[in-house]
Amino acid sequence: MENALKIYQETNKKQNALFLAFFLHDWDTISAPVKALEDRAKQLSVLSGLSYEWSTSPEYEAAVETLYQNRERLDEVLAHEVSVLREKISDMKKIPKEEYMAYQELLAKLYPLYVSAKKTGDFDAFEPYFDRIFEFQRRRCSYLTTESRKGYDVLLHEYEPGMTQRDYDVFFDLLKRRLVPFVKKVLAKPLEYSRAFTLRKFPVEKQRAFVEYLRGVMGFDEARTLIRESEHPFTTNNGRNDVRITVHYYEDNLSSFIFSAIHEMGHGLYEMQVSPALDDTQSGGGAGMAMHESQSRFMENMIARSRAFWETHFCALRECFHEELADVTLDDFYAYINEVQAGFVRTEADELTYPLHVLIRYEIEREIIERRLSAREARTLWNAKYKEYLGLSVENDRDGILQDVHWAQGSVGYFPTYALGSAYAAQFYQAMAKDLDIDAALRTGSVAAISKWNETHIHQYGSSKFPREIIRLATGEDFDPNYYVDYLIGKYSALYGIKE
Amino acid sequence: MENALKIYQETNKKQNALFLAFFLHDWDTISAPVKALEDRAKQLSVLSGLSYEWSTSPEYEAAVETLYQNRERLDEVLAHEVSVLREKISDMKKIPKEEYMAYQELLAKLYPLYVSAKKTGDFDAFEPYFDRIFEFQRRRCSYLTTESRKGYDVLLHEYEPGMTQRDYDVFFDLLKRRLVPFVKKVLAKPLEYSRAFTLRKFPVEKQRAFVEYLRGVMGFDEARTLIRESEHPFTTNNGRNDVRITVHYYEDNLSSFIFSAIHEMGHGLYEMQVSPALDDTQSGGGAGMAMHESQSRFMENMIARSRAFWETHFCALRECFHEELADVTLDDFYAYINEVQAGFVRTEADELTYPLHVLIRYEIEREIIERRLSAREARTLWNAKYKEYLGLSVENDRDGILQDVHWAQGSVGYFPTYALGSAYAAQFYQAMAKDLDIDAALRTGSVAAISKWNETHIHQYGSSKFPREIIRLATGEDFDPNYYVDYLIGKYSALYGIKE
Repeated sequence: MENALKIYQETNKKQNALFLAFFLHDWDTISAPVKALEDRAKQLSVLSGLSYEWSTSPEYEAAVETLYQNRERLDEVLAHEVSVLREKISDMKKIPKEEYMAYQELLAKLYPLYVSAKKTGDFDAFEPYFDRIFEFQRRRCSYLTTESRKGYDVLLHEYEPGMTQRDYDVFFDLLKRRLVPFVKKVLAKPLEYSRAFTLRKFPVEKQRAFVEYLRGVMGFDEARTLIRESEHPFTTNNGRNDVRITVHYYEDNLSSFIFSAIHEMGHGLYEMQVSPALDDTQSGGGAGMAMHESQSRFMENMIARSRAFWETHFCALRECFHEELADVTLDDFYAYINEVQAGFVRTEADELTYPLHVLIRYEIEREIIERRLSAREARTLWNAKYKEYLGLSVENDRDGILQDVHWAQGSVGYFPTYALGSAYAAQFYQAMAKDLDIDAALRTGSVAAISKWNETHIHQYGSSKFPREIIRLATGEDFDPNYYVDYLIGKYSALYGIKE
Repeated sequence: MENALKIYQETNKKQNALFLAFFLHDWDTISAPVKALEDRAKQLSVLSGLSYEWSTSPEYEAAVETLYQNRERLDEVLAHEVSVLREKISDMKKIPKEEYMAYQELLAKLYPLYVSAKKTGDFDAFEPYFDRIFEFQRRRCSYLTTESRKGYDVLLHEYEPGMTQRDYDVFFDLLKRRLVPFVKKVLAKPLEYSRAFTLRKFPVEKQRAFVEYLRGVMGFDEARTLIRESEHPFTTNNGRNDVRITVHYYEDNLSSFIFSAIHEMGHGLYEMQVSPALDDTQSGGGAGMAMHESQSRFMENMIARSRAFWETHFCALRECFHEELADVTLDDFYAYINEVQAGFVRTEADELTYPLHVLIRYEIEREIIERRLSAREARTLWNAKYKEYLGLSVENDRDGILQDVHWAQGSVGYFPTYALGSAYAAQFYQAMAKDLDIDAALRTGSVAAISKWNETHIHQYGSSKFPREIIRLATGEDFDPNYYVDYLIGKYSALYGIKE
């Protein structure tokens, strides 16, 4: 037992150390010279191989098994950790090492190819890579399929522990049933406000300056964080004290950078507020990607699209864009950032149509895995579903299947967590509102009190508990997607003067 | 033998892959959040420990020994590599692993502490770290001392294979004998030119733009390189296709950024032009640091401080700084960039006084190692020597012992390579001039022909030969420091109208 613990800790320490390379590579892709990434792929493949070897070594496996068998004698965090890792080892062993390494090498090379294909909307250029990624993911699903988890379930579980197609079907069915008709009603009603300003240019320099202002509001501490720019905004971190986000600035868009910066800061705060007690464990980081998205979507929507938030910060925004916003009122701005529009791009979507973008991706991913869809077929289905759910004809793949980086990075099964996370967020909001006057907290100028609630009820646990346990602890209830649907219908009925 | 080769290659592949982490960390220090680097030190220490284990494992050592015993059957590159690695393994084994790891952890933490101590000129804040570094280096020297290589020799050899104190003493004695009196003569004579412009401000944005212009001139290909900013300019690379340099911009200085950018590009071109045939070997990279400095100092001085260079590029510079340089002639500018002045800062020094800065550091390092000087004593000696050789009283440690990052990064024994490299450069210049009309080549607008000569005669070999062999191949002679002294005295006698 003592020896098992020693082997366990030594191996984890090596894995944690090696993670530094993957983290720094990930971050570096936003600025690395194009040719650099090709050469580097080989190195990353070798490092992935090392990580594979360590995590599947008979010695480590035996140590984990010993700890697992004695888990009642372990503290709660370690007991949880060991059972999660036991499953991961068993999964990892089912994937042939050579295949795993080759796949990592492929992924490492794809980022610049994806960025250039997206820029020119060139689906053909990226098609073969999509096909290779989809094929690997299908094989991965077949390797890891068990009695309780079949096909696409494997990927869903990977991004949000415990979730299956069955669970997501129930969830998305509710959204479809209650939201799709409501969205139609809203889209039929124009929102009245004075929108001339929305057509103006907003200099990137000023956008950057406002993000610096938001840093202060959000408590995104400069000594522990970095903000840079990339094609597709993302968050990455190495522990609690090195949390990095990217933003993309569009000169003709006043809202995109604000909400994407706050979204990523929401992810970042989660990582920054994991309990220091978990520092040297395998239980740092978020509990799952839906849980993570709940924290980013919470800040982006419940907080930053609320009226109370802008009652406090609109002055600063107008000061920053003093020429561009001189004639704009808080009411105009509030309407602008909450206007519902059928659009092509998920990350630019309003709060109400957003889950439909996710639904489309969920339905396509399921087909990719379960019905062996090719990339070309996925693209056809993508365009058909945008027509069906949002009434839109995709004309450029840049705004279609190439818009998101996820599949190009091998993340299949991630998308559904955006909608699920948004639903968690609505339920957290209700629970928080019992403890805290949220609007009053916002009027203090910072989100500190809100962030503190999130720390206490969600962040501190890291991944030391399953998402469903954290939800129960934080809200006193099991997950209930009706909070989300009620929230959306309530907010947009009021905004659009719709009686249900 | 076959098995030995397999073990050899597999281990090297892992080391090469792990190098990615160190490379990316190195680069990341220029922008990482302050607290990030503290946490990361543990990870770097574990990775150093891995590298230590791999390179000292009995299996790897035996493989290298087998290859070494059979070196006559190996190709030339591999035979050279194996004998170098055999020595490195034997050295590495003499340093206790725990001590090595603790030292790596310390170094990883120091960069932000050094930067802040330098900014405020706070010697006291950094003193204890200097002392710990010096103490480690002294212990390292005692561990690695052999019959043929004692004390400080150990470090000198590490940075330029084959060099000893004896060799450097001969070299620096020549410089002292011939240059010190000449420098006095030059410093006594004012250089006449119209220098009003040197007091102007040169906006950083324009400096950045001119560095982009220099990229083109130097062939510093954007697909394989990056240029960023840092407190202390440096070059780092991961193979031939990922070469990165930093520059520091000072608004009140028109020359610093030009020569430091070209200096670093000189280092970069060396790495970029190593033969692709050496890609998967341990013989990539430069042959030694003096050899490396020869390539950076060659570009910085022989090329970029030449009249022919500015006859071609002064127009572009004046266009870039069209307000600041409207009234400035090529003659003024040429005089300005070659003016000899006793200054405090090595990296800002003119070509002639430069080796005196290096001499001072060499003499101090020797005392640090051989006479166990403390950091505080080193500082006293530093200030005394600046008085003795350059007639200057150091008033702020920022311009004194804190000016260079080297010791703070654990690089003791590096400094002398700057002077030695400058001397190699002068000898290479003479050899190149036999094959090439250098001024005519410069007038084409790019350094391509010159760079090609360097590739053919120096860069392509990587570290597959010792520096002295490369010098012999490139120049047809052994190293001779008189080329350097003759070059300096010739150039500055003409410029200052001095008859020797």
